[in-house]
Amino acid sequence: MNALGTHLLLELKQCNPHHLDDLDYIKDAMVGAAQAVGAQIIGQSFHRFNPQGITGVLAIAESHLSIHTWPEYGYAAADIFTCGTSFQPKDAAQLIIDKLESKDPSMQIIRRGIEAPAPVTSS
Amino acid sequence: MNALGTHLLLELKQCNPHHLDDLDYIKDAMVGAAQAVGAQIIGQSFHRFNPQGITGVLAIAESHLSIHTWPEYGYAAADIFTCGTSFQPKDAAQLIIDKLESKDPSMQIIRRGIEAPAPVTSS
Repeated sequence: MNALGTHLLLELKQCNPHHLDDLDYIKDAMVGAAQAVGAQIIGQSFHRFNPQGITGVLAIAESHLSIHTWPEYGYAAADIFTCGTSFQPKDAAQLIIDKLESKDPSMQIIRRGIEAPAPVTSS
Repeated sequence: MNALGTHLLLELKQCNPHHLDDLDYIKDAMVGAAQAVGAQIIGQSFHRFNPQGITGVLAIAESHLSIHTWPEYGYAAADIFTCGTSFQPKDAAQLIIDKLESKDPSMQIIRRGIEAPAPVTSS
């Protein structure tokens, strides 16, 4: 049973709350993780909200990474969606976990595009 | 049991394959869905790949939307991640399903940040 994409959903609890509200730190964590595993970044958007919290999305040639942080809860939700086998998403996940100093990380792996229908033929 | 975010994972099969390879169409579908439900767009990145397929990520004040398309399989994986209750993510999902003319859509709803630890107090 083939899947077209692998989607890691990271629940990062008990992170260092200072990191979670630091725009440059979060950007470095996500861009750094993508670069370290060899992903090709093709677009990015990072924002800090008032009074707190950061959202970041990173389009990569292999799909995307995203993060949303709640400094007030020491919590971040990060996603790594990959297609192909050019890098191991778990390697990027571990880098993000380490960088955010999460003491209670968990990960859900969802395979996307399973049991794809037969290829479309042009009419 | 509270959740900080609601994450819809859309498996969109049997889409119109022509739409799935049309950068402007996909961008309009995603931006249009976000705008129609009242999401505040704060950043975006859409790309068409060679020979085919599109990736798009949309940062919104309420979290993010993303899409990855496989025209050759008539398949797209779309995500809608929201926090707060300012809009119903299912409404945005239905707009995307309709726009891509998916004849076999399915949706998984994942609550993110469940059982968040007690708020962090500043030291």
